[in-house]
Amino acid sequence: MSDAPALRRVLETALYVEDLAAARAFYVDTLGARVLLDTQRLLALDVSGASVLLLFQRGATSEPLPTPGGVVPPHGASGSQHVAFAIDADALDAWREHLGASGVVIESEVRWPRGGTSLYVRDPAGHSVEFVTPGLWKTY
Amino acid sequence: MSDAPALRRVLETALYVEDLAAARAFYVDTLGARVLLDTQRLLALDVSGASVLLLFQRGATSEPLPTPGGVVPPHGASGSQHVAFAIDADALDAWREHLGASGVVIESEVRWPRGGTSLYVRDPAGHSVEFVTPGLWKTY
Repeated sequence: MSDAPALRRVLETALYVEDLAAARAFYVDTLGARVLLDTQRLLALDVSGASVLLLFQRGATSEPLPTPGGVVPPHGASGSQHVAFAIDADALDAWREHLGASGVVIESEVRWPRGGTSLYVRDPAGHSVEFVTPGLWKTY
Repeated sequence: MSDAPALRRVLETALYVEDLAAARAFYVDTLGARVLLDTQRLLALDVSGASVLLLFQRGATSEPLPTPGGVVPPHGASGSQHVAFAIDADALDAWREHLGASGVVIESEVRWPRGGTSLYVRDPAGHSVEFVTPGLWKTY
């Protein structure tokens, strides 16, 4: 057992994208996330008051960022990342229909041994975005 | 307003690492996350029953993965990603001390205009890991 203080949850998940406008169209207009901050460097989105999804302009975070309260360290990644959103069990059909009506291709659908079903799509940057109903993990 | 069904939260956040054993030592032994799954491809960690942190072996997810319930699409990224963990306001000092006692260097500390303080460290893969108290975002 670790004697670490508690981590409450993952608060911020970061994806790196070339085209922030395309990311906004997908995550805000199509998926319904709410904009917290929209700059040339960063689009910060609220997911149901529980999580913050950060879409960073690729290359814009490669230097330390001085702020009045301290320096934000640099970071930056490339490639096709993965993120999964929790959805309700009874929302699976609605999501399938909503994605289809929005012109988002469902790349794959997976039924998990422990329960839960996942829909996989691609965001405009090519990241693998999953919508999963409860059951996949023991904790959810 | 989007007419999308509800997203409940970000369930899975994925980081790509070269050395899964080093990642396990950091996230499990030092930070106290709980192991859900530990394979050569993937270390899945529970964060307080609220979030799942996925540490993928770099390069091991570049092909579609057939499972009995469907095909998991490929993904994979390189570089230094960012993730933030929510901690309690009164746990900031305890985290500072715990990280120091664990030999983890605090790269930076930031006080945010709206409230909240962040500690930034690096995981063994070089990802920028933040511990943040409530206040940074309007939703938390």
